[in-house]
Amino acid sequence: MNATLQEHLLPEIRQRETPAALVDALKARFAERCSTALVIREQHGRDESSFVAPPPAVVVFAESTIDVSDVVKLAGQYKVPVIPFGVGSSVEGHLLAVQGGISVDVSRMNEIVAINAEDLTVTVQPGVTRKQLNEAIKSTGLFFPIDPGADATIGGMSATCASGTNAVRYGTMRENVLALQVVTASGSVIRTGTRAKKSSAGYDLTRLMVGSEGTLGVMTEITLRLYPLPEAISAAICSFTSIEAAVRTTIEVIQLGVPIARVELIDANTVRMVNAHSNLALREEHLLLMEFHGTPSGVKEQAELVQELAKAQGGKDFEWASTPEERTRLWTARHNAHFASLQSRPGSRAIITDTCVPISRLAESILESIAEADATGIPYYLVGHVGDGNFHFGYMIDPESAEERNMAESLNRRVVSRALALGGTCTGEHGVGLHKMDFLVTETGDGAVEMMRSIKRALDPHNILNPGKIFAL
Amino acid sequence: MNATLQEHLLPEIRQRETPAALVDALKARFAERCSTALVIREQHGRDESSFVAPPPAVVVFAESTIDVSDVVKLAGQYKVPVIPFGVGSSVEGHLLAVQGGISVDVSRMNEIVAINAEDLTVTVQPGVTRKQLNEAIKSTGLFFPIDPGADATIGGMSATCASGTNAVRYGTMRENVLALQVVTASGSVIRTGTRAKKSSAGYDLTRLMVGSEGTLGVMTEITLRLYPLPEAISAAICSFTSIEAAVRTTIEVIQLGVPIARVELIDANTVRMVNAHSNLALREEHLLLMEFHGTPSGVKEQAELVQELAKAQGGKDFEWASTPEERTRLWTARHNAHFASLQSRPGSRAIITDTCVPISRLAESILESIAEADATGIPYYLVGHVGDGNFHFGYMIDPESAEERNMAESLNRRVVSRALALGGTCTGEHGVGLHKMDFLVTETGDGAVEMMRSIKRALDPHNILNPGKIFAL
Repeated sequence: MNATLQEHLLPEIRQRETPAALVDALKARFAERCSTALVIREQHGRDESSFVAPPPAVVVFAESTIDVSDVVKLAGQYKVPVIPFGVGSSVEGHLLAVQGGISVDVSRMNEIVAINAEDLTVTVQPGVTRKQLNEAIKSTGLFFPIDPGADATIGGMSATCASGTNAVRYGTMRENVLALQVVTASGSVIRTGTRAKKSSAGYDLTRLMVGSEGTLGVMTEITLRLYPLPEAISAAICSFTSIEAAVRTTIEVIQLGVPIARVELIDANTVRMVNAHSNLALREEHLLLMEFHGTPSGVKEQAELVQELAKAQGGKDFEWASTPEERTRLWTARHNAHFASLQSRPGSRAIITDTCVPISRLAESILESIAEADATGIPYYLVGHVGDGNFHFGYMIDPESAEERNMAESLNRRVVSRALALGGTCTGEHGVGLHKMDFLVTETGDGAVEMMRSIKRALDPHNILNPGKIFAL
Repeated sequence: MNATLQEHLLPEIRQRETPAALVDALKARFAERCSTALVIREQHGRDESSFVAPPPAVVVFAESTIDVSDVVKLAGQYKVPVIPFGVGSSVEGHLLAVQGGISVDVSRMNEIVAINAEDLTVTVQPGVTRKQLNEAIKSTGLFFPIDPGADATIGGMSATCASGTNAVRYGTMRENVLALQVVTASGSVIRTGTRAKKSSAGYDLTRLMVGSEGTLGVMTEITLRLYPLPEAISAAICSFTSIEAAVRTTIEVIQLGVPIARVELIDANTVRMVNAHSNLALREEHLLLMEFHGTPSGVKEQAELVQELAKAQGGKDFEWASTPEERTRLWTARHNAHFASLQSRPGSRAIITDTCVPISRLAESILESIAEADATGIPYYLVGHVGDGNFHFGYMIDPESAEERNMAESLNRRVVSRALALGGTCTGEHGVGLHKMDFLVTETGDGAVEMMRSIKRALDPHNILNPGKIFAL
């Protein structure tokens, strides 16, 4: 780990000891499902962020709620951290064992517990991934829309309040998790919420858990809302010579209330990297990728209106895709943007911004951030769920270069400061993790963060659940 | 208060003393805006529920966040309860001073703080009512859809996680409150959320406050999402000779994913009471009231599909209303149902059920509950936001009759037990208040309620914020 990072994370890197007696107890309980092999620990000690930290002391592969409960009970007994792990796709260091302890891998808890198609709900274990879920419910005529790009687990998506491309129409995990089963810090198992579409029954523990990043409990069952597959789906791409024109088109679409299902921005530079990586031949200008869901005539009506708005901004080369294969080709560009960009600079890691601003401030928010990044010469990709006012720069740094890291972090700080000044948030969908603890205080104020701390202390008095994330205690 | 009720509420009725020194301090600070007159206290000591309790010891009319903060600080100093009051439209006893203390009336805090039309957001003080809000934003082409029937305050609607007729399309207060300013139990002022459409920035304090019924803080500013007024709105009523046919039509509409904006059930008996009260001439059969929002062709398409589904179930006499006046006439029936019914039995009060079930279980949930109510002979009205699986019986009792109250409460218990057995909730939108504390434990389990208590104790250690509601401490 380089010095700059060490310094950056120092307050939270204070390894607690994992006593041999605890490891012995875990091995007695879990046998070969408990591992202290370095390779396994290292696999569970990193994620898609650019951070490095010592690996967890031990990894347990849980296969049931009771397994999770027993791990948490033992951890509590020895006051040792427990960090839930799914597929490791966090980009904010959520999975890093900054205070040591146990990584509890829930990827084997991947059963679809109940499909209630007639109620438009499904209950899954936390290790189910979003693609697995959609495959499992394919025959019902329903789908689960939340798509953060990575084939993340539903557990991880719930813990970070993920969203992604479809959120502009279908909301985020916040709006789509109906109920939870959760193992608390004491190891007891509670249920929150019901399968009813709405409820006013006491404190909204479901929404408190969603986005709490594993710091208040470990989710062991998750009940989700599903949606009927639209009768018609149509995707389109449209090219713009200026980013501003693409963003202004998006703003108008949202302000007019068009129920667009997806509207994604990819800047020209990123299109070039994606073309090279995925062997595509997209026009190398700034792109809006859009998708329309509805009845055939409804989709046509939406698409015509949007096409008109885009043309008025100079958008050109509307390309349509109505077959699933054609749509997949278009969306490949969006889904591969992160990895395609990283491959354009071998060995690089990305420091990723995640601001979200009120829609009317999106253009200035993006344009000023581009100017700043261009001025430094740092390589970056730029993609965005622009219909929600949410976009990501990925500054591609040499992880060993303190200078590049400092430059990227400095750009990130300026992007965040601007978003907060415009009434926005430092994180639209990735969560706070290790990276945005200072930004959270700036955004919401000491009072709100102190309230979060009070809740954390009340629900996890020994600070064993994913400690060192969201805020310092 | 009759013996049955006394007994029912006994655990929570334990008046704390309000020291004269506190009243003196409040009078010194608020002068004529602090009242101990019995008539004022009694106005603030009742709501639309059937419960009675001693009035608060003192009423303070707050005009600013600082006013609220000062009331809470003084209350904290003397460990005396503070109960926020808007227009008194709670149906669950939220406003009752069961432990004595101060009613802080926020109805004068009724300013529209900021209209951000280009971002589809508005910020208001808690005493703004929903009709006032929609009047204030009329010229922007936007509207706030949540409509619980009563012209409640935005503060009260947020505190109870209200919803109502439009929730089937636009969600509840949970989905439509973006940010809050809150006075905490210590009297400090915090902010939660931002004006961005989504965020993953730490614990979701906004959603924790929404639905917390004044027990965790007093909201002093509320930022809401707004929506573009639909290009076309069309309302319709359709009559059915059986409730089952009306409900089955609704279930199919939802399962097919029709984006209907409102779908309300009124049973034939209630239609009769509404006709008599409001001088209407609606066909005295079971009614579905529906509303469609969208483009002209989209609305037409939705309406045609729904009409087809209704006809297949024997629905008849589709009556359409496309002018605002005609729509108002149709919706009058729905909005007046509660008061029209109460007036049909002068002196009566309603004990109101509020269950919400997964949509596929709606028919059995309603039909069995009707059979039980009919068997007792108790007069009732039946209305429902059936598209969400949410419906209300109002059992109209003589409030002095212990026998009638017992009968109504017994019916209510059976309605709730059935809803819980079907995977639903004891309260879709009214909140727990005084009335559903036992049901909450049955619904969510001891573990979840204990977690709620831990949060309450951490955030309000002296239990001064609306004590005795949601759960016993």
